[in-house]
Amino acid sequence: MQTSASPHLFSVPDDHGSPQPQALLRGGIDLGGTKIQAVVVDAEHRVVGSSRRATPTSGGAGDVVDALALALHEACRVAHIAPHELAGVGVGTPGAVDTQRGVVSNARNLPGFEGAVELAAMLTEEVDTTVRVGNDVGVALDAETLLGAGAGHASFLGVWWGTGVGGGVVLNGQRWHGRGAAGEIGHTIVKRGGALCPCGRFGCLEAYAGRRAMEERARKQAGRGKRTVLFELMEKKGLDRLTSGVWAKALEKEDKLATRIVDRALDALAAALGSSVNLLDVEAIVIGGGLGTRLGQPYADEIASRMRKHIFRPDAPPPVRVSTLGDMAGALGASLLATRPVAV
Amino acid sequence: MQTSASPHLFSVPDDHGSPQPQALLRGGIDLGGTKIQAVVVDAEHRVVGSSRRATPTSGGAGDVVDALALALHEACRVAHIAPHELAGVGVGTPGAVDTQRGVVSNARNLPGFEGAVELAAMLTEEVDTTVRVGNDVGVALDAETLLGAGAGHASFLGVWWGTGVGGGVVLNGQRWHGRGAAGEIGHTIVKRGGALCPCGRFGCLEAYAGRRAMEERARKQAGRGKRTVLFELMEKKGLDRLTSGVWAKALEKEDKLATRIVDRALDALAAALGSSVNLLDVEAIVIGGGLGTRLGQPYADEIASRMRKHIFRPDAPPPVRVSTLGDMAGALGASLLATRPVAV
Repeated sequence: MQTSASPHLFSVPDDHGSPQPQALLRGGIDLGGTKIQAVVVDAEHRVVGSSRRATPTSGGAGDVVDALALALHEACRVAHIAPHELAGVGVGTPGAVDTQRGVVSNARNLPGFEGAVELAAMLTEEVDTTVRVGNDVGVALDAETLLGAGAGHASFLGVWWGTGVGGGVVLNGQRWHGRGAAGEIGHTIVKRGGALCPCGRFGCLEAYAGRRAMEERARKQAGRGKRTVLFELMEKKGLDRLTSGVWAKALEKEDKLATRIVDRALDALAAALGSSVNLLDVEAIVIGGGLGTRLGQPYADEIASRMRKHIFRPDAPPPVRVSTLGDMAGALGASLLATRPVAV
Repeated sequence: MQTSASPHLFSVPDDHGSPQPQALLRGGIDLGGTKIQAVVVDAEHRVVGSSRRATPTSGGAGDVVDALALALHEACRVAHIAPHELAGVGVGTPGAVDTQRGVVSNARNLPGFEGAVELAAMLTEEVDTTVRVGNDVGVALDAETLLGAGAGHASFLGVWWGTGVGGGVVLNGQRWHGRGAAGEIGHTIVKRGGALCPCGRFGCLEAYAGRRAMEERARKQAGRGKRTVLFELMEKKGLDRLTSGVWAKALEKEDKLATRIVDRALDALAAALGSSVNLLDVEAIVIGGGLGTRLGQPYADEIASRMRKHIFRPDAPPPVRVSTLGDMAGALGASLLATRPVAV
């Protein structure tokens, strides 16, 4: 678990039942395309209960909500509390989020989420406490701001390097939302008329650095006869896609194709980050997401090094840090939503 | 004069001497590489005196300061006030500015400004009132925020499209400074490993859209025998460089080379702005600078149209407006510095 760097966040509840001030316990759920991570945290943001399960890959929105409720129940069981006793629950989700109404739209990676899903209302039915919903990358960034790699920086850029490339901008300690759609650093144009991005545009950072785009390129080049251990490693692990772990393993083995594709991603990341630093002159950059946390600080350092040549005032380039909350950032960030008044 | 769109900013003082409340009059000077524009404004930011003169192209920093003082004296004469009676004077200057100490460094376009110049102290000697110094593009943006195209927008990106490509970011009605170097949209990487930028890096927006870079390209291509009216127009006007006016005239005449080079600049601007909008989701974009104001709204519209294909949420692209204060934005913005407490 990537969170081992922040052991203070975890506390094992006393099995003999030293009672928690239950009204202060909150739930947080990270709803990802692959997994659901639920936590129960206390007022000091310590994890007192945790549970992880696979996200349903078929069925409807109701099945996903059932899985969320189950994960939360399990985390609550560890924390010796019932879901309805929680002060509230937050959910971080992909897609476009109407935080006011707790409605999620266009979360295409989730079964039954192609249209609009009344996620807050549906989950409230099952867990009988207040449910707030927020954007997955956004809440992860909130967690890094308060508890992780962003703490101590008044401003930073977050880059969530995973299946796609998400991001966020934190200024004066607050996420900058713009008109609601800020933070899309993954759609910085790194090559005009370049590679087709999953978003349908051309030349976006995500088209070079997103795990999905990288996998597509690897499949295409392997299909043309390029030698690689990527798919062998994938099959050995019983997987049907190139996870961050598979990429990391292939890099360790100095696989040429994997190295070349990651190299291309690093160059694209460096250019997009350089441009963003020139515009915003932030104090730091925080890299999270599946690939970001799996590849870790050596790759963050490499990005920093390649970024330097693009920075207008290169005397004090912002440090590039890996998310310290790792794959718990989303659930912890979601827990921050639980008792927050809904933004107007 | 580009400012004709904002006639309320100008008031002709009564020659019979209806006295102004002199303590409220402020001076503002825009110190450019080509011209010095001085204004005297009243408490409502109306221009009650104005003067323009050429920036010295030789000599030392003292000669530049003399020219600043002369321009201010002339503007004061029109406004029936002596410089020492002004509540204060602000100067917008290129280069790196230490606003605390009123010192300008690295303003390489100005004679004698290669090193550090104690501009505030030197000018105070001559005009006998408080002098504050700020960055030229920054103060122009402040003017647009308060009085111009940015008014009514909580957030916008300013792009100063001139000899170079300067810029600024206004968020919640305030310029975002970052660690002091924010706003360098001209150094967005629009082509990795691309054209050499005057800043020494490769592929920056300014290397494609800066007037200086555009002129270099035109000279090179004309040298290779490409036909163009650009240099003919330049000579006819008795100039030694391709001013914004020369470019505008060549475009009017549908000069092929000029059209192609401007086309390339528009594409680069659209990409850099698209990326910036994806990151910040601002309410508007304001285009100023020599080329920006000279080419005007039709070209701003063209940039907006080309930008659309890069925008992640294209349903509500921010409007692209031309600076309404035109070439008075700098002097008006400088006048805003005059009585402002120095930022700590």
